Amino acid sequence: MAPDPADDEQDTMKILLATDCHLGYQEKDPIRGNDSLVTFEEILVLAQKNDVDFVLLGGDLFHDNKPSRKTMHGCLSLLRKYCLGDKPCQVEFLSDPSLNFGHTHFPTVNYEDPNLNIAYPVFSIHGNHDDPAGQGNLCSLDLLNAAGLVNYFGKHESLEKIEVSPLLLQKGETKLALYGLGALRDERLHRLFVHKKVAMLRPKESQEDWFNLFVLHQNRTKHSTTNYIPEQFLDDFIDLVFWGHEHECKITPVWNGIQNFYVTQPGSSVATSLSEGESRAKHVGLLYVKQRNFKLHKLPLTTVRPFYMEDIVLCDTSLNPGDPDIAKNIEIYCAQKVTELLEQAERDRSGNSKQPEKPLIRLRVDYSGGFELFSIQRFGQKFVDRVANPKDMILFHRRRQLNPDHKGSD
Amino acid sequence: MAPDPADDEQDTMKILLATDCHLGYQEKDPIRGNDSLVTFEEILVLAQKNDVDFVLLGGDLFHDNKPSRKTMHGCLSLLRKYCLGDKPCQVEFLSDPSLNFGHTHFPTVNYEDPNLNIAYPVFSIHGNHDDPAGQGNLCSLDLLNAAGLVNYFGKHESLEKIEVSPLLLQKGETKLALYGLGALRDERLHRLFVHKKVAMLRPKESQEDWFNLFVLHQNRTKHSTTNYIPEQFLDDFIDLVFWGHEHECKITPVWNGIQNFYVTQPGSSVATSLSEGESRAKHVGLLYVKQRNFKLHKLPLTTVRPFYMEDIVLCDTSLNPGDPDIAKNIEIYCAQKVTELLEQAERDRSGNSKQPEKPLIRLRVDYSGGFELFSIQRFGQKFVDRVANPKDMILFHRRRQLNPDHKGSD
Ligand SMILES: [Mn+2]
Ligand SMILES: [Mn+2]
Ligand SMILES: [Mn+2]
Ligand SMILES: [Mn+2]
Repeated sequence: MAPDPADDEQDTMKILLATDCHLGYQEKDPIRGNDSLVTFEEILVLAQKNDVDFVLLGGDLFHDNKPSRKTMHGCLSLLRKYCLGDKPCQVEFLSDPSLNFGHTHFPTVNYEDPNLNIAYPVFSIHGNHDDPAGQGNLCSLDLLNAAGLVNYFGKHESLEKIEVSPLLLQKGETKLALYGLGALRDERLHRLFVHKKVAMLRPKESQEDWFNLFVLHQNRTKHSTTNYIPEQFLDDFIDLVFWGHEHECKITPVWNGIQNFYVTQPGSSVATSLSEGESRAKHVGLLYVKQRNFKLHKLPLTTVRPFYMEDIVLCDTSLNPGDPDIAKNIEIYCAQKVTELLEQAERDRSGNSKQPEKPLIRLRVDYSGGFELFSIQRFGQKFVDRVANPKDMILFHRRRQLNPDHKGSD
Repeated sequence: MAPDPADDEQDTMKILLATDCHLGYQEKDPIRGNDSLVTFEEILVLAQKNDVDFVLLGGDLFHDNKPSRKTMHGCLSLLRKYCLGDKPCQVEFLSDPSLNFGHTHFPTVNYEDPNLNIAYPVFSIHGNHDDPAGQGNLCSLDLLNAAGLVNYFGKHESLEKIEVSPLLLQKGETKLALYGLGALRDERLHRLFVHKKVAMLRPKESQEDWFNLFVLHQNRTKHSTTNYIPEQFLDDFIDLVFWGHEHECKITPVWNGIQNFYVTQPGSSVATSLSEGESRAKHVGLLYVKQRNFKLHKLPLTTVRPFYMEDIVLCDTSLNPGDPDIAKNIEIYCAQKVTELLEQAERDRSGNSKQPEKPLIRLRVDYSGGFELFSIQRFGQKFVDRVANPKDMILFHRRRQLNPDHKGSD
């Protein structure tokens, strides 16, 4: 049996994996406006509580390319509050920081800056929501980086060729090569892979000693022939792929037997669409790496706004389209469902006092078979005090009209 | 004779005074785009070279209420580069920081934060260009404050009453009460003063021992009856007023014999209008305070883009409005003037390699007396390689049409 990487603290790197925090999502909504920041705070608290060596984010930290001042302020405040402190970072930084951070004004890892007391370093690539743009080709992570609060890596400047230089990190006997690739258009990256224009640079010496972790932010699900990145494109020397951008939590590592690597997809920390994938329980990962072995604990996020989704197929119910009161009766039927889900939500509460009370509810109502529609707006009015999204609880559709994974990646 | 406050380092507070840096001004101009950041860097270098205890900014650090990412990034980078370091700050912070910084998430002065190594603390009030607005009533200084790089004070939350709690600072035998009031509409502040709704709070004990410095950002020049703040409105216990917002450098302290205080007006560090006031030499101040005495050295800014302004009254020249070639001859005359000013600019260069080469030129041409106009655009074309503002070098006007102090405050 392989040694348990959680056994020996000195030689075990402990990394908190989280992604797609989408800070600022729905920030103007009086009910949901703070959700993204609340859960980001939970993530940083989990990093502290679990005494990790560092936090690794997989992109889309911000929802908007130009976050509002309020969101940027909230993010800066949380990072300053939780990432600074007296705990010395036990991870040695071995690679040339000018290769890893050469695109920034401060090409060093922040915890080696003698002017900053970093207890929990944060490393991040950018996502498609917070990618570099505009004058200077900067992104929001560049601001956090300039402030010394985030180590922004995985930026690529060339359109023709991508070379990924790993961050080489060592703790005791464990050596981690951390590869990062910030988001770019799937079609373009797909083409670059096909044309062998993506090079993962490897340490020159004792290659076999390194645990190779690759974080990227692209479509994993096939949307069209070239609008995703097949796992087989990725180098097979990689040990673990941390896949950002896909919002469904599929954090338990899945073995890819062709490539001989595992893939973990932590998923977003806030639901940015009322899709099935986003309604699943959300987690972040506590990754233990010891030499070339790893273990991933999933940590449930307990501040995430509850989200319940249910499919109703009217012609499978006892409702009769010929009923003269059918519209009213469908509405009663749906209201009953919502009430049940609200009761369910009550039972399922995490116990974390910061978890918002009002859940998100989505009923997908298949009205095929001659059923009438009712007013979604009037329906929402009844639940305005109990549901976070009264205006869009109901989605009417007819059989086979539904997109099976409506906006699972974002 | 009063003791020279520059004599005794231990008891002398040394403060760099600068204001209206307007970071981001004309940032999209390919020629002038970097001017504001270049001079802000010079100011921070001056703080280091003169080994000041802290930097005090008088508002309008940013030109736009929502600075671009590039400008915010430039500012964060400069502050991190110059303000952090190992030099311990010798100024004791004696007041209750929750009174001075209670509006922020981190109600402490940054150099007392054990996680930040602050060598040159920056204190700032907001101006009218970077005042709090939007969700959360935040301003750009709140971002810098959250990042730990600026101590933002002088924010006022009430519309009916303003109480200014001073920052109480001590170095050796010198005690400084620093009062700050961020910009608000002149009419409103004028009214609040008239109704005795502005209270300057004073330390309870040994009031006579404190040197009282007040920084504000309002119109000093009378624009209309109530659209400015008369010096007589300000409390007479003040020793020195640091007046921001007015862009002309009038940094040498002027004695107000009625109020018994001095007023210094450092002026902007970048010209944001082609006005007479902005064409004057620009300086920042090195303020020495020892016990209740002060001395102000003016430090010339040597990276400011040269700006020359000249008035031409055509009917005072030998040009003849009856001349059939008069338009052409006026143009030649003006071009000759510009050439002279360019030669002047060459002679006047500061010697600082970071001073931009191409000057700003403004000719105000009074064409009263039947003179013809020429094409400003065509004229500019001739100087496109030698002047920073070829498109608006010429301002035609007729006698007495000119606004005497066109946009001196901003
Ligand atoms: Mn994404
Ligand atoms: Mn996303
Ligand atoms: Mn102003
Ligand atoms: Mn100004």
